Amino acid sequence: MAHNLLKGKKGIIFGALDEKSIAWKIALHCVEEGAEIVLTNAPIALRMGEINKLSEQCKAPVIPADVTNMDDLKNLFTKSMEHFGGKIDFVLHSVGMSINMRKGKSYTELDYDFSHKTMDISAMSLHRVLQTAYQLDALNEWASVVALTYIAAQRVFPDYSEMADAKSMLESIARSFGYHYGMKNKVRVNTISQSPTRTTAGGGVKGFDGFITYAEKMSPLGNATADQCADYCVTLFSDLTRMVTMQNLFHDGGFSATGVTADVINQMEK
Amino acid sequence: MAHNLLKGKKGIIFGALDEKSIAWKIALHCVEEGAEIVLTNAPIALRMGEINKLSEQCKAPVIPADVTNMDDLKNLFTKSMEHFGGKIDFVLHSVGMSINMRKGKSYTELDYDFSHKTMDISAMSLHRVLQTAYQLDALNEWASVVALTYIAAQRVFPDYSEMADAKSMLESIARSFGYHYGMKNKVRVNTISQSPTRTTAGGGVKGFDGFITYAEKMSPLGNATADQCADYCVTLFSDLTRMVTMQNLFHDGGFSATGVTADVINQMEK
Amino acid sequence: MAHNLLKGKKGIIFGALDEKSIAWKIALHCVEEGAEIVLTNAPIALRMGEINKLSEQCKAPVIPADVTNMDDLKNLFTKSMEHFGGKIDFVLHSVGMSINMRKGKSYTELDYDFSHKTMDISAMSLHRVLQTAYQLDALNEWASVVALTYIAAQRVFPDYSEMADAKSMLESIARSFGYHYGMKNKVRVNTISQSPTRTTAGGGVKGFDGFITYAEKMSPLGNATADQCADYCVTLFSDLTRMVTMQNLFHDGGFSATGVTADVINQMEK
Amino acid sequence: MAHNLLKGKKGIIFGALDEKSIAWKIALHCVEEGAEIVLTNAPIALRMGEINKLSEQCKAPVIPADVTNMDDLKNLFTKSMEHFGGKIDFVLHSVGMSINMRKGKSYTELDYDFSHKTMDISAMSLHRVLQTAYQLDALNEWASVVALTYIAAQRVFPDYSEMADAKSMLESIARSFGYHYGMKNKVRVNTISQSPTRTTAGGGVKGFDGFITYAEKMSPLGNATADQCADYCVTLFSDLTRMVTMQNLFHDGGFSATGVTADVINQMEK
Repeated sequence: MAHNLLKGKKGIIFGALDEKSIAWKIALHCVEEGAEIVLTNAPIALRMGEINKLSEQCKAPVIPADVTNMDDLKNLFTKSMEHFGGKIDFVLHSVGMSINMRKGKSYTELDYDFSHKTMDISAMSLHRVLQTAYQLDALNEWASVVALTYIAAQRVFPDYSEMADAKSMLESIARSFGYHYGMKNKVRVNTISQSPTRTTAGGGVKGFDGFITYAEKMSPLGNATADQCADYCVTLFSDLTRMVTMQNLFHDGGFSATGVTADVINQMEK
Repeated sequence: MAHNLLKGKKGIIFGALDEKSIAWKIALHCVEEGAEIVLTNAPIALRMGEINKLSEQCKAPVIPADVTNMDDLKNLFTKSMEHFGGKIDFVLHSVGMSINMRKGKSYTELDYDFSHKTMDISAMSLHRVLQTAYQLDALNEWASVVALTYIAAQRVFPDYSEMADAKSMLESIARSFGYHYGMKNKVRVNTISQSPTRTTAGGGVKGFDGFITYAEKMSPLGNATADQCADYCVTLFSDLTRMVTMQNLFHDGGFSATGVTADVINQMEK
Repeated sequence: MAHNLLKGKKGIIFGALDEKSIAWKIALHCVEEGAEIVLTNAPIALRMGEINKLSEQCKAPVIPADVTNMDDLKNLFTKSMEHFGGKIDFVLHSVGMSINMRKGKSYTELDYDFSHKTMDISAMSLHRVLQTAYQLDALNEWASVVALTYIAAQRVFPDYSEMADAKSMLESIARSFGYHYGMKNKVRVNTISQSPTRTTAGGGVKGFDGFITYAEKMSPLGNATADQCADYCVTLFSDLTRMVTMQNLFHDGGFSATGVTADVINQMEK
Repeated sequence: MAHNLLKGKKGIIFGALDEKSIAWKIALHCVEEGAEIVLTNAPIALRMGEINKLSEQCKAPVIPADVTNMDDLKNLFTKSMEHFGGKIDFVLHSVGMSINMRKGKSYTELDYDFSHKTMDISAMSLHRVLQTAYQLDALNEWASVVALTYIAAQRVFPDYSEMADAKSMLESIARSFGYHYGMKNKVRVNTISQSPTRTTAGGGVKGFDGFITYAEKMSPLGNATADQCADYCVTLFSDLTRMVTMQNLFHDGGFSATGVTADVINQMEK
């Protein structure tokens, strides 16, 4: 059931790969709520994924952009403003990748060239997106920017490896740029710290199954789904949350505030 | 502009005293969003305030209840369910009062009988409300409970005195009961940590003016208003935020994540 | 191996019941490090425990005091200053008890008269101690006050019940009074958030065994012992930590910063 | 007054430039407390600074190392173990530099090549140091690693620019590696979040004076000095804090837990 919460709003969605992507669900929910959107992803992700299907469903153009390339980002914002005939109201950043994890390198044997790429793609990319928008004056007053993150930024989940450090940096960038963009133009920037979610990207993490079971048992409401994350994201893009900024918001069924559950204690006694 | 976000939902609003009250604004916004509500407050607050005006505007009955009296609370929930013909979907707890502050006693000369009353009214009351609902099975699945709090629970604002300790306890109760009620019935419990707001209650705090100015200068988006708090509260009562629970959510224009602003630095150099 | 870290310092130790008590170990370590101390506890605890043994070991007088009784506390500080011939340099607060837990009442069926007692003994008592010292001007400049707490103040451990709310309030009182006493007299106030420890008091908590095993598996260095806590406490009483104040300090082998361990994941897969 | 707290311990100190450096003071205090140390810094910093003076005072060899160069770090640890005739007990990481700030580029006009260097020098360097030690098995059991950080990692201080994001990443690396090294070898890793300190490096930050005044007014005990930081660091290198790991520890006179002070409020009203 839609509420027209985003009626008249225009947004850019980064990171929809396929139907399992959280960004994919967010794109759909935004359109259901009355928004117009532009879809973007790295050229290679566009080839591998099924973005055309989403593009049709959302009546949204796809504009390729490598988030580590400033020309691509400039082109993306410029073309998006041309397409919309005006400035942007919201941006979703759902981008992250660890080269070291892909290459099977553990946290105690990182290759630092890979690490620089991980940081650039997964964290600095948010700064690149925001700086591009800032310099082009591409966002309307009270625009809302959301980046997806994970609680590994606060507590160690060993298999999450260097992505934890990337997410910490990402959350810091959200705060830092949230200050500057809020001061300049009342733009707000937040991160959603989402339950572990079975996406095509997430699925590749070693030990993901044991971990998702643990998170489920440790969350009084269970793990939040991608669809529920999309619902929540819509509220943050809407005008109802205008004074929420520079926050890291847990959307996790209570996991972050739970020290232990009866279920986990019982499992320990087996 | 309303979105029917709370269509069909039934709620209880504690703490609307007069037009300046945050609870007053929340009551109005909930009704605009399609909810039916019951209003409640302590008998003395009902006499002092202007609740009848709100009652008419909202077409809502007023059921008096002293939050420290279990019979009153039981009566409130029982009558509310009779009135609605069913269970409750949301509850707002906006209740707090420091007897020591009223009596002009500073934080280093507290009267502990007064302190017990402060804690009972301002913190334990949330437990009383939730325990009453829990034992009467008065809340629907996925019901949402919100209590208003203040950042003094995390950092010291000296004039806020013992209310800081009460708010810390309140936030802990929200987490603790959020666990138990989430496990039992998927009910979620959160606190909103709101900017300092010029209410009739807040107005009485010593040094409030200097403080509200400081908070304004320290918030990239400025202080959040009572109306904006009501907007935010509506999202938390809606089905779009179902997996958010046991959280303390800052609604403060970025104050909580700001260490200092250029404005404040300049003021320091005067 | 002692280092004379507390040479010439005088302190009061609350809460040593028997050899398993953390306060007991702290008393011993303080004396080994050159401090003189006064021991205190509630009259009933003095009768039940083995304080005389500790008193002899430490050459320390025992002055009974009910922490909820202002006359007792005034007497304690006055007598202690007489005994020492001067003001106090450090205070350990290791006091807590939940009447509801003792009576077998779960978190969703609290008796609020009991709750008031729990809060008074476990949290407000720290305020009472500090206010007494403040009004008697009983603490030297740079004196150090430490209260023991538990991570349930931040995250829910369901069996810890209302003690979680009490510990939240306790930590807030440490911050709040830390501000006022720091401003007045450079006194600092901190809390140590200690691993679950097999004390006579802790042992009574339902599900304690399953829980302590979980904490052990979730801590990269394992659970911290009472002896290790005493070592840590000595550093906080010493002059080497003068600028640490109003902090909650985790002494827990890394538990608080660990989201999950390989061990726990493996246990989940059984 | 020394206590022999580090008697028999061997450590490596990164980042002592001149007498104002925090690392300089830490080196001196460690030696006073009975430790033997090796000093290290980047070749250019060795040329610019006055390390030889410190080297003589501490009877410590200087081994140059660029923290972004793995061969240098390997050489440093290998030579240090040869010098000591055994493994290392503690490491201080006091390294950070923002190329963008040096070049006068504000947070909304970062050059990303510079940013990569900033991240490498200021954050990833801690990972490089730890990974080198881990792979060479260069640290004794219960060794203690401390990195210096700043509260800008949690709250925005606008002039601190991209260093805030670097410090967030640094603190995350401390947690992440603290997990792995704790599991393997009981090594602990923490960060000290120090008051703003007038060092040669810090002095160059725009608006530093206004800011240091603000911090002084916002800290109940005032700003912590470099000497006090050295005292605190000694406790973390000692055996008295063995179970403290993966923590960010504020050493700031209470700044981090203070929302506002009477002084700042008064200044606001001018």
